[in-house]
Amino acid sequence: MPALDLSASSIDITRAICDIPSESGDESVLADLIHDAVAELPHLDVFRDGDTIVARTHGGRAQRVAIAGHIDTVPINGNVPTRDVDVDGEPFLWGRGTVDMKAGVAVQLKLAAELVDPRVDLTWMWYDHEEVDAELNGLARLAAHRPDLFAADFAILGEPTGGAVEGGCNGNLRVVVRTRGVRAHSARAWMGENAIHAAAPILTRLAEHRPREIAVDGLVYREGLNAVRVNAGVAGNVIPDLCEVEVNYRFAPSRSVDEARAHVRSVFDGFEIEVVDVAAGARPGLDAPLAQEFLAAVGAVPRPKYGWTDVARFSAMGVPAVNYGPGDPSLAHHDEERVALAQIEDVERGLRAWLTAS
Amino acid sequence: MPALDLSASSIDITRAICDIPSESGDESVLADLIHDAVAELPHLDVFRDGDTIVARTHGGRAQRVAIAGHIDTVPINGNVPTRDVDVDGEPFLWGRGTVDMKAGVAVQLKLAAELVDPRVDLTWMWYDHEEVDAELNGLARLAAHRPDLFAADFAILGEPTGGAVEGGCNGNLRVVVRTRGVRAHSARAWMGENAIHAAAPILTRLAEHRPREIAVDGLVYREGLNAVRVNAGVAGNVIPDLCEVEVNYRFAPSRSVDEARAHVRSVFDGFEIEVVDVAAGARPGLDAPLAQEFLAAVGAVPRPKYGWTDVARFSAMGVPAVNYGPGDPSLAHHDEERVALAQIEDVERGLRAWLTAS
Repeated sequence: MPALDLSASSIDITRAICDIPSESGDESVLADLIHDAVAELPHLDVFRDGDTIVARTHGGRAQRVAIAGHIDTVPINGNVPTRDVDVDGEPFLWGRGTVDMKAGVAVQLKLAAELVDPRVDLTWMWYDHEEVDAELNGLARLAAHRPDLFAADFAILGEPTGGAVEGGCNGNLRVVVRTRGVRAHSARAWMGENAIHAAAPILTRLAEHRPREIAVDGLVYREGLNAVRVNAGVAGNVIPDLCEVEVNYRFAPSRSVDEARAHVRSVFDGFEIEVVDVAAGARPGLDAPLAQEFLAAVGAVPRPKYGWTDVARFSAMGVPAVNYGPGDPSLAHHDEERVALAQIEDVERGLRAWLTAS
Repeated sequence: MPALDLSASSIDITRAICDIPSESGDESVLADLIHDAVAELPHLDVFRDGDTIVARTHGGRAQRVAIAGHIDTVPINGNVPTRDVDVDGEPFLWGRGTVDMKAGVAVQLKLAAELVDPRVDLTWMWYDHEEVDAELNGLARLAAHRPDLFAADFAILGEPTGGAVEGGCNGNLRVVVRTRGVRAHSARAWMGENAIHAAAPILTRLAEHRPREIAVDGLVYREGLNAVRVNAGVAGNVIPDLCEVEVNYRFAPSRSVDEARAHVRSVFDGFEIEVVDVAAGARPGLDAPLAQEFLAAVGAVPRPKYGWTDVARFSAMGVPAVNYGPGDPSLAHHDEERVALAQIEDVERGLRAWLTAS
């Protein structure tokens, strides 16, 4: 395997690292190449944890920015190696990982090598196992092993945003709302109590619920309260004694986890509720001066990120974070995954402009 | 295996045939014994179809009554052989089949042997596979092979009724009511349409529905409209595009199958409905003179039967039919299944009084 040439264009680096398969759990070859390519650079201190590589400048700047990207992909499905394709007259690079998110990683690698004297100190992070169970996540593992490496004033995650800046993310709460009844033969239903019928108000409250829109640090987050599963039934001739409705609440990052739980409890007042999973949201932190300078340099109008991403890990450690990367997110994980070459260059230009401004 | 002694008491016959295991599909040993015991009786013409035995008197009476009982049981669960037990000072026979329904069969066998000159001609039917899939039912098979054997003016099924007379049975309709939506990621729920939320009116209509009580041939049937199953869900982060509610409608025997379907369609007007199963009810037919004489002879106040039983097979062939047998039906299929000895004797006395009245 030839070494990575970080003096190549970010497009060529994208092509090179997409052609090295790195499905989750199989990132070592690519991690080795990244490690070797940055370990030789004197302006970077390099640390490795499993297949996660951290490279830090040590310029003594007043501020530090973390810039991170995962190097794993979802499974390849006949879409490696990459191909240059043309869509409506525009050149794209097609193949697994081009969008999610090796184009973003390629830009980061190029800038990590070239920006020997950035205006803020930089902590580059390339990590493994993002596309699988959260407990395997390389960034989470690093946070447990070396929380000190997360010290920063601002963070950028290179997830695909189509070159836009998407700030923070909504929180995510899952609860099970239960009704209980009494079993009986359905021929003598009056001997029992039907748990499904008792669940009617749960669905009615969900159907009538109007999700809030909440401004946080200048971005408007749209919440959502939705049933994602309902299950009940013993047999075709039995009045069921249990009905479960699983509800997913996406809550604005201005709400704490406790507030989110309280909101759901108030909506389903009178019903039995079990919280099965909760993850705090992440404030975009775009009111910070460093963030404002970033937006100005990149020339982007920020918008809210709705889905939960690893920016929340930075947020949980007190570091405001945004998503900013090339690629149409709706093509992530798609068999026709492909990135517009112009977006790769745009993001490189945006980051370079901000990081080298005087 | 010793021959069945039909000169023994109905209690002793119950004990004897309960101690011969005859789970559904394994009735041949008991069917052989029954066949051999009645085949030698000159007042009976005996016909066999699989493990179903039919024995008919040929006395040239103006009227004929069919009296039937199934000889199979649900699986034995450590409750064979039988034991004599005492419950609150009252003697019971304990064990699988004592209630459902070998005590009833024992009474029938005893009377079949003894009543050589009954006041009406009799068609005794002992059949297999009642406790399993309806398509295996021995009575249904017989109806297909020899419908002529069902010719009768009245029928009695010896299912456990605690010695009461339970007339007819409700019909049984199962439908699936569906809602459809549009899938979306639950972080962007507004891109989709939630099929579970759309099902709220289905549950509300069920919860608010007040089942009717309908008098048929002098008995009041209580209907029931109940959800017995609800299912929806794709994944914890996906707005579901399909929700299914399975509804079971138990309808009075005065309603036709078409009327039952129409009623359910009107309740769920506006929703997609699929009928998955329907069985007509059975009118009790207790206004017929023969039925009135039966009630007077056994001294019972009739009540409606709610669950679907094989009386509906007679009803479908134009023969009014009732359930009348020893044993508390709530103990059927129970591991502590047991029949009060006095009820066995009561039912024997009731049937004998009617069938021998001049």
